[in-house]
Amino acid sequence: MPSRHLFAALCSLAACSLAATPLRAQSHETVHYHATIDNVKPTFGPAEPVAHLKPGDTLEANSLDCFGNALQKPGDPFSNIKIDNPLTGPFYIEGAAPGDTLVIHILDLEVDGKQGVGTFSPGFGAANSTHYTPMLEKQPLPERAWYYPIDAEKKLITFHALDSNFETQFPLKPFLGCIGDAPANGEVRSSLVPAEFGGNMDAPEVSPGNTLYLPVNIPGALFYFGDGHAAMGDGEVAGSAVEVPMKAKFRFELVKGKSTGWPRLENDRELMTTGIYRPVDDAVRIAVTELIAWLHRDYQLSDLDAYELFSKVGHLHLTEMVDPNYVVVASIEKKYLPPRK
Amino acid sequence: MPSRHLFAALCSLAACSLAATPLRAQSHETVHYHATIDNVKPTFGPAEPVAHLKPGDTLEANSLDCFGNALQKPGDPFSNIKIDNPLTGPFYIEGAAPGDTLVIHILDLEVDGKQGVGTFSPGFGAANSTHYTPMLEKQPLPERAWYYPIDAEKKLITFHALDSNFETQFPLKPFLGCIGDAPANGEVRSSLVPAEFGGNMDAPEVSPGNTLYLPVNIPGALFYFGDGHAAMGDGEVAGSAVEVPMKAKFRFELVKGKSTGWPRLENDRELMTTGIYRPVDDAVRIAVTELIAWLHRDYQLSDLDAYELFSKVGHLHLTEMVDPNYVVVASIEKKYLPPRK
Amino acid sequence: MPSRHLFAALCSLAACSLAATPLRAQSHETVHYHATIDNVKPTFGPAEPVAHLKPGDTLEANSLDCFGNALQKPGDPFSNIKIDNPLTGPFYIEGAAPGDTLVIHILDLEVDGKQGVGTFSPGFGAANSTHYTPMLEKQPLPERAWYYPIDAEKKLITFHALDSNFETQFPLKPFLGCIGDAPANGEVRSSLVPAEFGGNMDAPEVSPGNTLYLPVNIPGALFYFGDGHAAMGDGEVAGSAVEVPMKAKFRFELVKGKSTGWPRLENDRELMTTGIYRPVDDAVRIAVTELIAWLHRDYQLSDLDAYELFSKVGHLHLTEMVDPNYVVVASIEKKYLPPRK
Amino acid sequence: MPSRHLFAALCSLAACSLAATPLRAQSHETVHYHATIDNVKPTFGPAEPVAHLKPGDTLEANSLDCFGNALQKPGDPFSNIKIDNPLTGPFYIEGAAPGDTLVIHILDLEVDGKQGVGTFSPGFGAANSTHYTPMLEKQPLPERAWYYPIDAEKKLITFHALDSNFETQFPLKPFLGCIGDAPANGEVRSSLVPAEFGGNMDAPEVSPGNTLYLPVNIPGALFYFGDGHAAMGDGEVAGSAVEVPMKAKFRFELVKGKSTGWPRLENDRELMTTGIYRPVDDAVRIAVTELIAWLHRDYQLSDLDAYELFSKVGHLHLTEMVDPNYVVVASIEKKYLPPRK
Repeated sequence: MPSRHLFAALCSLAACSLAATPLRAQSHETVHYHATIDNVKPTFGPAEPVAHLKPGDTLEANSLDCFGNALQKPGDPFSNIKIDNPLTGPFYIEGAAPGDTLVIHILDLEVDGKQGVGTFSPGFGAANSTHYTPMLEKQPLPERAWYYPIDAEKKLITFHALDSNFETQFPLKPFLGCIGDAPANGEVRSSLVPAEFGGNMDAPEVSPGNTLYLPVNIPGALFYFGDGHAAMGDGEVAGSAVEVPMKAKFRFELVKGKSTGWPRLENDRELMTTGIYRPVDDAVRIAVTELIAWLHRDYQLSDLDAYELFSKVGHLHLTEMVDPNYVVVASIEKKYLPPRK
Repeated sequence: MPSRHLFAALCSLAACSLAATPLRAQSHETVHYHATIDNVKPTFGPAEPVAHLKPGDTLEANSLDCFGNALQKPGDPFSNIKIDNPLTGPFYIEGAAPGDTLVIHILDLEVDGKQGVGTFSPGFGAANSTHYTPMLEKQPLPERAWYYPIDAEKKLITFHALDSNFETQFPLKPFLGCIGDAPANGEVRSSLVPAEFGGNMDAPEVSPGNTLYLPVNIPGALFYFGDGHAAMGDGEVAGSAVEVPMKAKFRFELVKGKSTGWPRLENDRELMTTGIYRPVDDAVRIAVTELIAWLHRDYQLSDLDAYELFSKVGHLHLTEMVDPNYVVVASIEKKYLPPRK
Repeated sequence: MPSRHLFAALCSLAACSLAATPLRAQSHETVHYHATIDNVKPTFGPAEPVAHLKPGDTLEANSLDCFGNALQKPGDPFSNIKIDNPLTGPFYIEGAAPGDTLVIHILDLEVDGKQGVGTFSPGFGAANSTHYTPMLEKQPLPERAWYYPIDAEKKLITFHALDSNFETQFPLKPFLGCIGDAPANGEVRSSLVPAEFGGNMDAPEVSPGNTLYLPVNIPGALFYFGDGHAAMGDGEVAGSAVEVPMKAKFRFELVKGKSTGWPRLENDRELMTTGIYRPVDDAVRIAVTELIAWLHRDYQLSDLDAYELFSKVGHLHLTEMVDPNYVVVASIEKKYLPPRK
Repeated sequence: MPSRHLFAALCSLAACSLAATPLRAQSHETVHYHATIDNVKPTFGPAEPVAHLKPGDTLEANSLDCFGNALQKPGDPFSNIKIDNPLTGPFYIEGAAPGDTLVIHILDLEVDGKQGVGTFSPGFGAANSTHYTPMLEKQPLPERAWYYPIDAEKKLITFHALDSNFETQFPLKPFLGCIGDAPANGEVRSSLVPAEFGGNMDAPEVSPGNTLYLPVNIPGALFYFGDGHAAMGDGEVAGSAVEVPMKAKFRFELVKGKSTGWPRLENDRELMTTGIYRPVDDAVRIAVTELIAWLHRDYQLSDLDAYELFSKVGHLHLTEMVDPNYVVVASIEKKYLPPRK
């Protein structure tokens, strides 16, 4: 049966303007936190906060890689992995209440080490038999791990083929695969899941210089992050990025009494909305309708003018098609928009 | 990033035989429990048990309707609804441990009242704009409620059209929309969600005479039920069934050390597997591969013989296409199978 | 770019009443036609008619099985197959014009032989890697053929497992997998394809006693049929039914100037609409919206009353999930409806 | 029933190397052709060739816009449109035979006029109720047309909002929405359809400097093009690009005896494969498996190394989600690849 109430609540403020309340003159602090395998979390949801921050405060913290740093060199068995996508947090944001928007300025991300790991695991991937798209073929592709040296100075990552004598280099572009807060409706979701609360969005848009807006669902919001990526292709098709531990720096703000239905991102150049579900078709529909609502509300374009303009200059980015939900980011450059109201 | 571990755990025993351990000679009790709006739960997940049962014990308990019994007569505002799909429970099953299978014999269901309610709510349904399949059209279909007199003796339900002078009667076929236990991986899911733990499957197969198998994910399993339906069409397309409070009677058993990856059902005539995800295509793939695995393991048919036989005599039932995940039940009649091993 | 015109044309009369024009008093003939491997067709589309019929006329003709009768006994190589789903026809229906509806009364179907064949072919099926849902796993399931003795008198079919010593019997329920006319918009479609013109719908509803309504897209409609099935499970999941040559008997009528957007079926007990596309979700949406439109137009129920009533007593049948498009039949029993206007 | 043969044929050579046969020393000609509303075609399929070309020859020809140039100024009624996506052609390529690959070098595209048109039509679009994703909401978005002045010198296009006083400019990036040859299996497809033969792919990758590979399905291939776009956003979500008449220049080659299963593109920097079907998920699977097959065959990477490398540096581009099939282009930069074998 239905979900009249809950979904209505999720949707009702979806199109609202998100200009953050100017921060009152007060001292802003920097909170430092060190994550280890002993204090990471496996889920987005209520848990004892590891620290409290006020709006305006800065957080400097690290995250383990998606394997809990368990794969360090060729031959390390996957059975070493004790937790998938371990999360740093949660961080309690003072004053955050359901119906607010948590504003996360991603100030800096730095790979916390000199290498990354990529893996293939049977049952996970965009073009092989999986848990949710199972096939009868009985010979799964074999488990594999690739180790990627990272040159932080040259900002280059090296790929070594496993089955032939080939190597190549590609650019370092760090971002966080996991970033989110506690879900709505009393839910607790695995750190593998992206959804309305953010989560495992695997979106390269979660990178320094960008601001992320998340709906606040419980008091304090309970912010988590993890699953650092040194680089990733669209769709994360084989099931992993260049997986790395990360050092991260964020500053938080709140928009009181207004909520996005789904995560949004913004920087000086672009507006970005997310659509997070399956199939990809529905993720596109969510992202596009959210962006049009944003253009309508804050830029005074009619729905049809906004739809038309997006159809001419908009971008759609399938960030991943491997997690329990798929993620599409719709974006438009601000230079094509009227002044914001 | 990946989910190697978790999904592997979910899948590994998917094809195992589920013959329940013969119950040891001991006194089996009947536990009685009365649900009210004050003790129902909004989620499947950890919570203080309302009662404990041993394998072999019987539970007699009631459930509220999916609106928490808030809609009683034409004109009652939807704002009366305080909770969607309130769940009775949880019930702690002694001895149940992760990796076991919880066996639920559905002994009896009786509508707890003389009428049912059906509703349409904008944003929810299989053929209208929804939260996960949003459309730009701005004129939603209006909110509506239909009240259904139920004649328990004649086993008939009466539909009164709202917009024309028409009524008709159809058979009473009670079942439970919600039935499940605590999810795996530390998750807590809304009572609106069907998934591997059962939940809001809206499956008419959850009816007297049938036995449901659920994976046990945490100690005690934590059994919940609710969302009684007096009758429902395939797909529950407008978003509701004939929603009713229910009196239910179950007997529990455990299969120790064996787990189904997904809920299964069985009766004297049929084997039934479920596939629960989006799009429907994937729900079908899950249900079909699960049933073939069952036929292979317990009936000694090769995968291809089982696939072929299902392709000739199998059934697929789309129980609902409105909840956050969609549900397909695949079934085959036992009379077409070899003897069980 | 868009399809404003074409789709508008397809949709515009979708909800119209389809009462056939009373046949004028005239002599109705029975046309006999014999299909052989030398006169069957591989596509739905324009071709030289093999016979002409007037509304009211009866056609008696045979069809080859989906392999062109090339598989007759175990060991016959699949390379014997020269054509897939060979079609008998086309038959030109005098007076049929674009915008009309072709009414096909399925009077009789009789298996034309004493056995059927089922096959599995890599790349085709609902739960294995296929042309349109390709997976990287490299070990395809092997090609296989099962031969099914058919006892026409007892109406029983026998399945013999290939990989174990097991046989079972199930009921003979003959229907036509392929039935259709020439597509709209100048298209020609393979006999493997179901779409708005009917085609390879693999719908057991195409059986004796039922009437099929098809949109007429070109003068004469150009009716084809083939792909006889002695029995089939829901979804035709392994890619074949019990494939048989068939003897068929139809009577044709026309509804002038009115068209269904999609194939519909009807008998004394039920109204049936089809939805034909991918994913299954969209096939459901098409079938349900078509049925509601039918209930609204011909039975005077409001859209919401019709949606609600379907949500309580409607049926959804996934006939196949293996062809290039998937097919869902939505149906409702007439006993639950107001009198037809 | 099945399609063993046809799909096998489509797939069998999918991974082959496509180095074009060196052109023999012979005189290469330039063929000029002028398309008008009287000689354009509505379908991809057999038709009388309008010209013949030899491999090595150049074609210079124009195309009408997707409305047949029927919308010229605000107020022009959509009823003026007589044909959707009118195609220029077909052009017969001497020596092209089924199983070959047609190589199309896109030498130049120039907008043939000073303005473009964008439209919204109810029933067509990625985020509104459509023919294939119908919804019950009864108030369709209204029909609209936007006219776009194009400054060819500055390479800028101007958008004027219809419902507010706003204009903006964005870059001119011409490409062809429609490009293809005759389909396989005797099919004829509407110019609205993209599929294995190319067609209405609406891919900005079909632009000057890129080479397109298409499977040849019938003698002479029968090349068509049309539906010029001056610019387009990802997904073409509102159903149209900046629609323009176009002047095009192509040079053709043949690869004898080798075929791609699906269209591919290439330039000095990138390899590009297409996946064309619904839902988007399957389009992604097709494009990714095709690209991995290409990397395996021509660049000697193992499947898993190729899958992994794509997961780190690959691109996925959803070109359109509005036509009867959806189109995804997967691409990888050659600088990340081993030398071609």
